[in-house]
Amino acid sequence: MSALTDQALRELMSFAHRLADASGEVIRPYFRSGLEVTDKKDKGEGRYSPVTAADQGAEAAIRKLIKAFHPDHGILGEEHGHENPGARLTWVIDPIDGTKAFITGLPTWGTLIALNDGGRPVLGVMDQPILRERFSGGPDGAFLGTTRLKTRACARLADAALCCTEPDMFAAGPEREAFDRLVRRVSLRRFGTDCYAYGMLAHGFVDLVVEASMAPWDIQALIPIVERAGGVVTDWDGGSCAEGGRVLAAGDAALHSEAMKVLQGR
Amino acid sequence: MSALTDQALRELMSFAHRLADASGEVIRPYFRSGLEVTDKKDKGEGRYSPVTAADQGAEAAIRKLIKAFHPDHGILGEEHGHENPGARLTWVIDPIDGTKAFITGLPTWGTLIALNDGGRPVLGVMDQPILRERFSGGPDGAFLGTTRLKTRACARLADAALCCTEPDMFAAGPEREAFDRLVRRVSLRRFGTDCYAYGMLAHGFVDLVVEASMAPWDIQALIPIVERAGGVVTDWDGGSCAEGGRVLAAGDAALHSEAMKVLQGR
Repeated sequence: MSALTDQALRELMSFAHRLADASGEVIRPYFRSGLEVTDKKDKGEGRYSPVTAADQGAEAAIRKLIKAFHPDHGILGEEHGHENPGARLTWVIDPIDGTKAFITGLPTWGTLIALNDGGRPVLGVMDQPILRERFSGGPDGAFLGTTRLKTRACARLADAALCCTEPDMFAAGPEREAFDRLVRRVSLRRFGTDCYAYGMLAHGFVDLVVEASMAPWDIQALIPIVERAGGVVTDWDGGSCAEGGRVLAAGDAALHSEAMKVLQGR
Repeated sequence: MSALTDQALRELMSFAHRLADASGEVIRPYFRSGLEVTDKKDKGEGRYSPVTAADQGAEAAIRKLIKAFHPDHGILGEEHGHENPGARLTWVIDPIDGTKAFITGLPTWGTLIALNDGGRPVLGVMDQPILRERFSGGPDGAFLGTTRLKTRACARLADAALCCTEPDMFAAGPEREAFDRLVRRVSLRRFGTDCYAYGMLAHGFVDLVVEASMAPWDIQALIPIVERAGGVVTDWDGGSCAEGGRVLAAGDAALHSEAMKVLQGR
């Protein structure tokens, strides 16, 4: 349980919306603008990880607001590292989750903003500033705009729709084999989904999201959205995935349990 | 060359826009409506191919308009077969290309409308009725709304962004191996793209789209959009892909040639 009262959380949720507004303002002009993209390779892993001026500008705008209004809060993000690491409350942010979608002009990326109370993310926002869609999870539930979100019942793998950003996010060997075992069991699979898949899971149109190689800022904002909509988000062993790594998210707890068995080879 | 004058093509393009308007009106209320989905398995291939009331209703609306205003034209679509097959001009339609995206709530599907003059598709529309984005290719060029589209220069595979709907669309064996050879050579890959990838190719944000197992209505509308934006769309041997099957689309002719060599194992 968070030590924060619901009222305090509501005020912080309002502030999270303000952060998303500011981020969207920075990002919007860059989308499909034909800007030059700066490439960087992930250290040690060799994957393609484009970073755009939009990403960097939006993270700066978010950090500036946090420092102005909550100078005692910590900030953890991809572009500018961890500030104020001893703070009780930490904002965990990724202005553009889905940079590959962004640079190819596809609208399935999002801005991720979470607040972590030292134990877990207690509120989260996933904003799509081009489509003007904002998913949120916090003290009053999970929402898309003002529409309350609820996951759908789906207990059987054979009936499930599964999303995953890309099959190559799984390390060759047991991890990829576990994913392949699971993906063969479901009725529908969809790649190329990034954070958007978690929004659709919370909304009741997707049943499973399975990922790996995640950073904390890739997942923390999505946890309260899925959980407050009735879903379950853990690592592949049922523990917390807030620090990243492997993620298994399900709309139905029974399906989560079934999927975990298959991933574990039980 | 088409026997139709540019003026005749312009009038038919206006009619194609009207068809897309009518289709969008039918489809829009069904998106994220939680409607029950009718499943059907593709005959003989066992792939998942959901068909929604939206798809069927939109195709009926399109066919009704064509019959009312151009009763001498032929119509070819997935849901209701081939009508008036001896006609000189045939509309080739797919109201929802990307049914998996549609039923999982993702906005990357589209309505495809082509006009074929007996030799080739002479105009095409790809409409995204939720995002209100409409791509078109015809006598006056390629457009997104009123913005003229142009593919970007990208001659080297090592610099290319490649899209594909899903790796499992390639048959196990030589076809899948050819795709895997190509995908290893590019700088960025993105799955889950359906018709939207061709729009982004025409718009200059994607360099290659590689697919297989396509139907005529999956590709015909997209050919004029890509070609009029400066791109090249063929099968994997450089011939026409208007009848479906394997597709290789590139924004840059030099890249198309390089990619074809890799697919052919030369």
